[in-house]
Amino acid sequence: MRYVDGSLAALDSPRMGSAGDDGELLRRYAELIVGFGANVQRGQIVAISTEPGKEALTRALAAAAYRAGASFVDVNSFDTYVKRARIEFSEEEFLEVVPSWYGERMLALGEQRCARIGLTGPAAPGLLDDLDPERTGRDRLPFIAEAVTVVNARTTNWTAASCPTPEWAQLVHPSLSAEDALARLWEQIAHVCRLDEEDPVAAWRSRMDRVGAAAAALDERRFEALHFAGPGTDLTVGLLAGSRWISARFSTIDGIEHFPNLPSEETFTAPDPERVDGVVRCTKPLVLQGSIVRDLRVRFEGGRAIELEASSGERTLRSLLSRDPGALRLGEVALVDGNGRVGALDTIFFDTLLDENAASHIAFGQGYEFSVEEADRERVNKSGLHVDVMIGGEDVNVSGVTSGGERVAVLEGGAWRV
Amino acid sequence: MRYVDGSLAALDSPRMGSAGDDGELLRRYAELIVGFGANVQRGQIVAISTEPGKEALTRALAAAAYRAGASFVDVNSFDTYVKRARIEFSEEEFLEVVPSWYGERMLALGEQRCARIGLTGPAAPGLLDDLDPERTGRDRLPFIAEAVTVVNARTTNWTAASCPTPEWAQLVHPSLSAEDALARLWEQIAHVCRLDEEDPVAAWRSRMDRVGAAAAALDERRFEALHFAGPGTDLTVGLLAGSRWISARFSTIDGIEHFPNLPSEETFTAPDPERVDGVVRCTKPLVLQGSIVRDLRVRFEGGRAIELEASSGERTLRSLLSRDPGALRLGEVALVDGNGRVGALDTIFFDTLLDENAASHIAFGQGYEFSVEEADRERVNKSGLHVDVMIGGEDVNVSGVTSGGERVAVLEGGAWRV
Repeated sequence: MRYVDGSLAALDSPRMGSAGDDGELLRRYAELIVGFGANVQRGQIVAISTEPGKEALTRALAAAAYRAGASFVDVNSFDTYVKRARIEFSEEEFLEVVPSWYGERMLALGEQRCARIGLTGPAAPGLLDDLDPERTGRDRLPFIAEAVTVVNARTTNWTAASCPTPEWAQLVHPSLSAEDALARLWEQIAHVCRLDEEDPVAAWRSRMDRVGAAAAALDERRFEALHFAGPGTDLTVGLLAGSRWISARFSTIDGIEHFPNLPSEETFTAPDPERVDGVVRCTKPLVLQGSIVRDLRVRFEGGRAIELEASSGERTLRSLLSRDPGALRLGEVALVDGNGRVGALDTIFFDTLLDENAASHIAFGQGYEFSVEEADRERVNKSGLHVDVMIGGEDVNVSGVTSGGERVAVLEGGAWRV
Repeated sequence: MRYVDGSLAALDSPRMGSAGDDGELLRRYAELIVGFGANVQRGQIVAISTEPGKEALTRALAAAAYRAGASFVDVNSFDTYVKRARIEFSEEEFLEVVPSWYGERMLALGEQRCARIGLTGPAAPGLLDDLDPERTGRDRLPFIAEAVTVVNARTTNWTAASCPTPEWAQLVHPSLSAEDALARLWEQIAHVCRLDEEDPVAAWRSRMDRVGAAAAALDERRFEALHFAGPGTDLTVGLLAGSRWISARFSTIDGIEHFPNLPSEETFTAPDPERVDGVVRCTKPLVLQGSIVRDLRVRFEGGRAIELEASSGERTLRSLLSRDPGALRLGEVALVDGNGRVGALDTIFFDTLLDENAASHIAFGQGYEFSVEEADRERVNKSGLHVDVMIGGEDVNVSGVTSGGERVAVLEGGAWRV
């Protein structure tokens, strides 16, 4: 699950490349994001969070929003090069300054019932890598706490979608030429967003109906735990009595339905952070602050990761997970079936919006409180981080454990059994 | 005289071209703008108004501001392509919507005593030309009324400076290759901003001392009127008793000196809108909404332009000046001596910040109220437009008319006589 205003970055070259020349694809993508994802209503102000290098899609979104009856489109472009200048040169005492109007604007977006659209995809990959991590960690922008307040208040209809850029494409497809890499990334985004369907909205509705039905069935069963079984994996993830299965089909307090992540293939909840036991083998590499963690294996006991090894990136992961006590426990468990389109591409996208939809996953760290009923919210895992780890696949079966200890098939060979 | 947030536009290509590769020029320019123009103080938030296509200078400004002790750099990038989408597609009733947080942010910049920097230069020349002018006229952004409030309150130290872009360079130097045009424009900007001096700040201080001394001498004389005499020009411009000669060296209410226009070669005031008589011939072409007015001659009577002819662009000018009654009267008269660097380049820049500093000029329409003493402010000309018309040159002498009717030399052969 991804927020808008969560993790944007920037680059120096705003040309769209191949898809920029393909105005038709841009227009269809923008209309899907505006009309289906955010579901912009006539008279709404639409806030777009973008970055230098994403101008073409941003402009297409603005046009789509005005055609949909938006009363105004407010574009906010966050430049990671300016953030870099801050981390390099700012005096120590100013590193956490955030102007008062940043939070005020976000709260006004909620009060005035606006729509929000965020464009993800690392536009300036690695730009902050050589900086002092202690200083980098103190500047959390573009993230602001008020964005979480507004999401929890359900006052805005919002969505996050990926925007290909040449730098990002080169990162995903290093063996291709710059032009081919960008074309390939656009093709993949179009595919996972169902833009290659005649009626992408109908395709999404049908897909979300299936995922939503699985979520409803899981909610009905009220399993005590989930069990993951596969090569190198024998893991039990305890669920709270109040754990609710959420899919990415939200509704504002005023009843505007919206789809907060494009694409989304998952249903997720917050597990019991004290009842996770067994071993698990990651089925996809994990991208962490520019380094890649491969062949990760973890052993849990009483909810805590007590053993951890990887063929690469192990130190980075260990250092991250030592951040706070909650970092070694789980905040999220998510199920993705084999009909999801991201996993089939077998590509590391370096964009969590895409990568976390490749397979069933668990996440170390902070959980989403809205995925648990009121009474159990205190028990959701707390941490300053959230790291998704892919553990699912065709050869990993998932079953639900009932209060009587019975195991009921949930996912078998990648297919829903609920 | 140019405001920040007055007239910005955008383009699709953010590469800096030649000066982007010349990090040294960018750094020196950014330091002049931050350290001398805006005179950023330690602990200040710095607001930068920029556009897509101006990333390289914007980033250099951010670095310079943080090095100068800024507590935060808040970049606002206004995209004329998004404005175009609005004018094309917005419903009629929403065309004047401005989100509440736009004005609130501007007022907060004043209340919190921030610094402000605006980058001028038409980044997307002609982009709105084919749109319905009635609809275009209703969307005044990026201009917001609160910017004028904050300027008048003198609570922010601010400056406006030009940022070359490839599209703008091609407009100024259409006969050069794209690369040469950009290099030439950068060279010219560097020259008029005294960046080719060993100590640009010292050069500016000395220049502003000279212009400031002329302004002080003019204030002391309390002329009844100015008289312009040259080929085709015999014009008397009446002054108000409260007309004060302003040069672009401002000071905030807290005493922070700043230089609001880089470059600035002028001293200006608001004339008596009812006492302008005679004939005047323009000495430079005039750029108006994409069309060029050449060989303009105007006859004034009782303050009003009663005859007007030009060899090109006459219709555009007439239509503009019919906007309101004040549009045919003068709001500003400004003197520029022959040592100014802009005029010597003999180039039309299509950026008022530069073009108005090429020669002495008059302006049809709205005057600057702060250039007149309190008692006479009501008498400053009012209009919805402000059009600068260059009327000075080496062969145009300017004299002051005393209350006794005597003429005293002010500018002769381009040299100050006061």
